[in-house]
Amino acid sequence: MPHGAVSYHFHGKQELLIAAALVTFERAFPVAGLRSLDGVTDLLDTIAAMIADPKAFDSVLAGVSMEAMRESERDAEVREHVAALLREYRVRIAELVRADQDRGAIPADSSTAGVATVLAAFADGLILHALVDPDLDVGEAVESLRTVLAR
Amino acid sequence: MPHGAVSYHFHGKQELLIAAALVTFERAFPVAGLRSLDGVTDLLDTIAAMIADPKAFDSVLAGVSMEAMRESERDAEVREHVAALLREYRVRIAELVRADQDRGAIPADSSTAGVATVLAAFADGLILHALVDPDLDVGEAVESLRTVLAR
Repeated sequence: MPHGAVSYHFHGKQELLIAAALVTFERAFPVAGLRSLDGVTDLLDTIAAMIADPKAFDSVLAGVSMEAMRESERDAEVREHVAALLREYRVRIAELVRADQDRGAIPADSSTAGVATVLAAFADGLILHALVDPDLDVGEAVESLRTVLAR
Repeated sequence: MPHGAVSYHFHGKQELLIAAALVTFERAFPVAGLRSLDGVTDLLDTIAAMIADPKAFDSVLAGVSMEAMRESERDAEVREHVAALLREYRVRIAELVRADQDRGAIPADSSTAGVATVLAAFADGLILHALVDPDLDVGEAVESLRTVLAR
């Protein structure tokens, strides 16, 4: 690709890297993928499978996504973009929680939005910890959260 | 401080920065602080208060800690150190879970280690998300997790 084509679209290396990080973030955690899920059990299975399977768990993809979140501290545009993405995930996860509440799999008196925020934070925290400690028992944690949510 | 004193202890800037990051990490999340807590409700209150109170929430401290976890990808020594710290947190959190189970505040059939991993991942994920999105309803999430754990 000619250098001019790149410099026409991006004003400097930082802007190019940020665009690449945001695309990677959306690829690592596709919102569209969440749409095909059936409920919270499906979501937790997906998270566990993603982290536990070395082939499915792209630590580069996950790592760049964590960096993109951290880069939010330094760049207002990244922050807005990542915050909007996180909100989109939470809204979609809340739909899964609501579906489970409607079919009685999760008690109806739980706060739908609250449980969605718990699930989103848990998923990203677990990815963060699994990247640091490959021996972390991801399956046991996912099973524990599934159990307490259904109770 | 004379330059010689610094270069005597640290072999290069990277080693100095890593030592500083690890000290910051331990300061941001003191294991000793966990020892003074009484149970999971205490822990969740502490997390919520830390994130929600702008004065108590040192985003620089929290940010450096997140960077230290991310630096684990690039530096085996940092990874071992941070992984050992995370294990220490989980062991201490498991003691809080066990105390709650003994007094009947959390059902005894929950996996103690599993719930501890859920709490540790949730806490760090929530900090990560709150750093990106200051409008995140941290209190609602903490309350939701408290409710489902006690059920």
